[in-house]
Amino acid sequence: MKKEGRLIRWIGWIVVVTTLLLLGFIIGWFAKPTHPNTPDNTASSKYLREFLDEMQPDQIREHLRKFTRLPHLAGTEQNLIYAEQIMKEWQEYGLDSVEMVPYDVLLSYPNVSQPNYISIVDKLGSEVFNTSLAEPVPEGYEDVSNIVPPYSAFSPKGQPEGDLLYVNYGRTEDFFQLQREMGINVTGNIVIVRYGKIFRGNKVKNAMLAGAKGIVMFSDPGDYWAAGVKPYPDGWNIPGGGAQRGNVLNLNGAGDPLTPGYPAKEYTHRLSLEDGVGLLKIPVHPIGFHDAINLLKNMGGPIPPNNWKGGLNVSYRIGPGFTDEFKSQKVRMNIHTNNQVTRIYNVIGRIRGALEPDRYVILGGHRDAWVFGGIDPMSGAAVVHETVRSAGRLLSKGWRPRRTLIFASWDAEEFGLQGSTEWAEDNAKLLQERAVAYINADSAIEGMYTLRVDCTPSLHTLVYDLTKQIASPEEGEEGVSLYDSWHKRDNWTNDRDAPRISKLGSGSDFEAYFIRLGIAAGRSRYTKNKKTERYSSYPVYHSVYETFEIVEKFYDPSFKRLRAVAQVRGGLIFQLADSLLLPLDVNQYADALGKYAQSIALLAQRHPEEMTMYKVSFDSLFSAVENFTVAASDFHERLQTVNKADPLQVRVMNDQLMYLERAFIDPLGLPGRPFYRHVIFAPSRHNKYAGESFPGIYDALFDIENSADAEKAWEEVKRQISIAAFTVHAAAMTLTPPA
Amino acid sequence: MKKEGRLIRWIGWIVVVTTLLLLGFIIGWFAKPTHPNTPDNTASSKYLREFLDEMQPDQIREHLRKFTRLPHLAGTEQNLIYAEQIMKEWQEYGLDSVEMVPYDVLLSYPNVSQPNYISIVDKLGSEVFNTSLAEPVPEGYEDVSNIVPPYSAFSPKGQPEGDLLYVNYGRTEDFFQLQREMGINVTGNIVIVRYGKIFRGNKVKNAMLAGAKGIVMFSDPGDYWAAGVKPYPDGWNIPGGGAQRGNVLNLNGAGDPLTPGYPAKEYTHRLSLEDGVGLLKIPVHPIGFHDAINLLKNMGGPIPPNNWKGGLNVSYRIGPGFTDEFKSQKVRMNIHTNNQVTRIYNVIGRIRGALEPDRYVILGGHRDAWVFGGIDPMSGAAVVHETVRSAGRLLSKGWRPRRTLIFASWDAEEFGLQGSTEWAEDNAKLLQERAVAYINADSAIEGMYTLRVDCTPSLHTLVYDLTKQIASPEEGEEGVSLYDSWHKRDNWTNDRDAPRISKLGSGSDFEAYFIRLGIAAGRSRYTKNKKTERYSSYPVYHSVYETFEIVEKFYDPSFKRLRAVAQVRGGLIFQLADSLLLPLDVNQYADALGKYAQSIALLAQRHPEEMTMYKVSFDSLFSAVENFTVAASDFHERLQTVNKADPLQVRVMNDQLMYLERAFIDPLGLPGRPFYRHVIFAPSRHNKYAGESFPGIYDALFDIENSADAEKAWEEVKRQISIAAFTVHAAAMTLTPPA
Repeated sequence: MKKEGRLIRWIGWIVVVTTLLLLGFIIGWFAKPTHPNTPDNTASSKYLREFLDEMQPDQIREHLRKFTRLPHLAGTEQNLIYAEQIMKEWQEYGLDSVEMVPYDVLLSYPNVSQPNYISIVDKLGSEVFNTSLAEPVPEGYEDVSNIVPPYSAFSPKGQPEGDLLYVNYGRTEDFFQLQREMGINVTGNIVIVRYGKIFRGNKVKNAMLAGAKGIVMFSDPGDYWAAGVKPYPDGWNIPGGGAQRGNVLNLNGAGDPLTPGYPAKEYTHRLSLEDGVGLLKIPVHPIGFHDAINLLKNMGGPIPPNNWKGGLNVSYRIGPGFTDEFKSQKVRMNIHTNNQVTRIYNVIGRIRGALEPDRYVILGGHRDAWVFGGIDPMSGAAVVHETVRSAGRLLSKGWRPRRTLIFASWDAEEFGLQGSTEWAEDNAKLLQERAVAYINADSAIEGMYTLRVDCTPSLHTLVYDLTKQIASPEEGEEGVSLYDSWHKRDNWTNDRDAPRISKLGSGSDFEAYFIRLGIAAGRSRYTKNKKTERYSSYPVYHSVYETFEIVEKFYDPSFKRLRAVAQVRGGLIFQLADSLLLPLDVNQYADALGKYAQSIALLAQRHPEEMTMYKVSFDSLFSAVENFTVAASDFHERLQTVNKADPLQVRVMNDQLMYLERAFIDPLGLPGRPFYRHVIFAPSRHNKYAGESFPGIYDALFDIENSADAEKAWEEVKRQISIAAFTVHAAAMTLTPPA
Repeated sequence: MKKEGRLIRWIGWIVVVTTLLLLGFIIGWFAKPTHPNTPDNTASSKYLREFLDEMQPDQIREHLRKFTRLPHLAGTEQNLIYAEQIMKEWQEYGLDSVEMVPYDVLLSYPNVSQPNYISIVDKLGSEVFNTSLAEPVPEGYEDVSNIVPPYSAFSPKGQPEGDLLYVNYGRTEDFFQLQREMGINVTGNIVIVRYGKIFRGNKVKNAMLAGAKGIVMFSDPGDYWAAGVKPYPDGWNIPGGGAQRGNVLNLNGAGDPLTPGYPAKEYTHRLSLEDGVGLLKIPVHPIGFHDAINLLKNMGGPIPPNNWKGGLNVSYRIGPGFTDEFKSQKVRMNIHTNNQVTRIYNVIGRIRGALEPDRYVILGGHRDAWVFGGIDPMSGAAVVHETVRSAGRLLSKGWRPRRTLIFASWDAEEFGLQGSTEWAEDNAKLLQERAVAYINADSAIEGMYTLRVDCTPSLHTLVYDLTKQIASPEEGEEGVSLYDSWHKRDNWTNDRDAPRISKLGSGSDFEAYFIRLGIAAGRSRYTKNKKTERYSSYPVYHSVYETFEIVEKFYDPSFKRLRAVAQVRGGLIFQLADSLLLPLDVNQYADALGKYAQSIALLAQRHPEEMTMYKVSFDSLFSAVENFTVAASDFHERLQTVNKADPLQVRVMNDQLMYLERAFIDPLGLPGRPFYRHVIFAPSRHNKYAGESFPGIYDALFDIENSADAEKAWEEVKRQISIAAFTVHAAAMTLTPPA
């Protein structure tokens, strides 16, 4: 019995020891994380709150004040000084690295000793009227030097003389109307058009193709005047002496005109000026409406259609030339602008990603300004600066994003998005393989009404989620979210109850990232009420009156609107860089594709007989969209069940999310535009600013109207439908399980 | 004391329990792997051995026998039947999935009712000699139908008549010599050239550009005859009645001529035949040397330079036309070949990767043959089949590769690499983002001497490591490795003691993967002794005499050579798919770039005065290569210290390795060749077969010789140097730490 008792006791012991060991083992096994760096989403969202709350209106005011004291045109010393200052401050804020990246690109400046202007000359050749050589300088800036007078950058030199011809906005359809309906020949005349509706470079190209000798562009109060608002400095309207600067290139995404496709480095081969991309062949000059009155008031020729009439007290007669009384007077342009290869500087700052350093989220905006850049771009640059400051604070508290953050201060955006495009060309391989998203930061404000967001469809959900976490900056809306404030003011459509989000067009630095490289992109700013304020952009756009004071006095006295924009832009990059699963919504892309396909098919339906005759069908496109919709929805479901503790599984899904936008890139580019490669989104050939969906089909349909060979034109429509269908199918494939 | 004793006892108990729990905890903690799927490289290499050993000569013999019984030209029923059989057997072997992927591409067949031939016609127009309509059928195949007679696929129809002009190999330099040195005008004549040295399509293009009406190509014994070897069936030389089939397209990587850039699906828009890519405009026909003697024997005109003389007992006089005696006789071509859009079928099989299903390693080779395809391609297809079988066996034993394996049986390679190119176009996005490597599997044998490997530099080290683990197939070399056997027979260069590895050219299905998409690629086969056997490819190439028997009797009676090739091809994909760190060696790429830069600069140095006059410098390229070399060496060092237990760290490094090859792709393509986009490797414009390094610079230098505008020609050289330098810099950036 004793032996037996001992045995039992021993067995008891063994059981106890084993149990304890086992218990410990189990605790140890489960206590150990599957992956040492398993992300903690609670921490991430706590940091998001801190990141947003750290951003301060007063800081943004300071940044804006600091960087708008002096003119800082691309290629000038002052713009380099600001670059150095930004670099220094970003370093102080705590970024892991900040570097200055130079390129040598083609810029264009007025000749200092031979000013540009437009004259009316009498039959003896004497100048009886000259347009002004500069804008009246605003109070407080009288002693500032280096204010570049209004000019059209990259205008060729020349002194063409001829009769003036008014062609409304200078759009393709305006020239058609002039030539076909009114039977007026453009050849040999100098064209005058009002600014607005389309990118100015497209106006110049249209005038050139129509045979004009030169082109004058003016800011008409009908397009650049807010009712009931005084001109600056008493209000934010443009004075009659103000004029809109701007480049007139037709780059179609090429960046530096002399180095298309490659970064403009020291060793880079450069095209000759004659072969440069997008350089037009007729002189161009911009004027204000005071000067425009003098050119227009004596115009002869037919009375224009009503929709050609602007807001000036003149008849808007079309010409060519003046009324009989002034018939012998001609108009002469005097343009002496020089192109020159000039060094520009991007500032690039980085926060290294903790777990996926090879995944990039980019916040970029330009620094160069036509003059002070109070709105364009420094309201945006100030917001970026504040975002960097806030990120630096978080870093000092121990936070580090999962992915790498890149901040960019671009140069020479005003000269054709050159700084951002050259850097994209320089880093194309890295970006193609590693960039998750690009958030653009140009002007942060262009109105006082509500938020405006343009972005790729997969970002919609993130934008909505985020704006619900940001406060409305509007007075009297304490406790109201930005989302609700925005939603109330600008509902999307009848069929969708959400704040409006628009397609990305072009005209700012996201272009190379989105349209050339296929990186998910978005932009946001504060905007006007589009229903009631019908002027283009904002009245003082690209004039000397874009000062710090116009923002401080009129656009955002509390700087809360700019703070809200900072929180949107900053919040977007934060979430994109720090979320375990990328906050990109493939279902939203499917939705958008469905709508775009409907709408482009509808556009084609304007030609029902030809559609039948040439056997044009959108079936392949609809079927591709259906295929995509199923793939997206399946993917989205799989995403819900991913094992978040398995870093490879997460990476595989994230890669599919990241590369979805890339799948819409056609390496062959749109017809004749090798650097516009996004099959879903690109500007039409007829207007760089506005984004079209299915731009290849859109342009082919546009050409139907004015093609001599209808069969060939419809062949091209069919070809474009086929490319679109293939691309959508290919994109769907990227969302299916990888093997 | 009792209390105290109890306390001590309690403390003792607690210590024991805690210790046990802690011990268990520690064991549990450390017993649990950091990542559930931490790779076990020992297991992987054990499986490699099994994988290689499983491959059997007899099995390969069986596969080859089975798939060479009947002609299986692309687009014919028999080739579909073989596709179905391969699909079925791959499924039986145990692949996870096998699918048939069809495309509708432009193929070209002789007209069954109107045969193609060449005539000599007398002055009355009567045919006094006609070339043969078919090759004598080899013994044992007399009853086989559907043997397509020798023809030049995609020759236009036509019956041109004229004098014959002999232009050696029809190379650019041959036409130069003819026109410039001999002062002979090609226009209006029918050109006759011997096969060899360059791709036949380049010969046709040269003839067309020179103004020829038509072109005849013949197999000269000087180029297709091995000394001391009897013609088939008594040996492996080509009989005088045999002729080389082949396409004469100038596709430059476009795939289907009617759908360049897009897969040829049902809904795909097709170009018209006139706009099709690479279709030439003059009739073409291939003949054997028996027929060639009859065309050449009475030729008049100058005696040719010695290196224009082939191996026939004729004078090789150049013409144009016959000697005086036969002056009135002309040559007439009778070509009735038809182009037609035809359905082709790729077979695609997959083994899903266990850990990285989104990383693809591809083994692909074509199935379509001109007739039986005993060598081309079925010696290669048999090897793929055996590789699939062996992989299936491993799967059944519980093995699964880390990455996804894809096996492809391509169709219509003989018609311009169409099956492989259409699939690459269809899957371009996935491949660009996910493909680790592409191993090609065309003909596995073209000689009986030793191994031949052409591959991208980063694969060199893997090829050497692997061939050391494979046995030599040569008799009397038991116990000798394939590496040593190969090394002994074909040492690389004076400065490198290792078996020779060559650059990839084109002419097989790796083209779209390597040159268009930038996927690391390689090919291997058994080859002849290049020093002593100077004929092009192998004598019976593309003739009816490529039978099973020619392999069994002459090329590889034991089938051990084919087994060795199977082990090389299979071993490559095994290691690429299953190694934890990708077995790609960036230092080897740096080495190669250094040599290529030296050699292209040397080529330019042939024009020292112009180099000075036009300020041409290779400094930027050398500096880029230096930069790359440092980046590669740093990367290689970092690779040694990577934490192999951290799946994200491993993935980040592997991605850098995978994307290195992609970094050499220029999306704008080489000048005029949008689908040849690899800046380091592509064929010259003058010969599709041979790979040139820095092909952009090479072709620009080639053009120096025959450009009317030397300054412009040298500008292009400088532009190409700049592009090369930029590309190498960009590639170096991909190897630096990602943030």
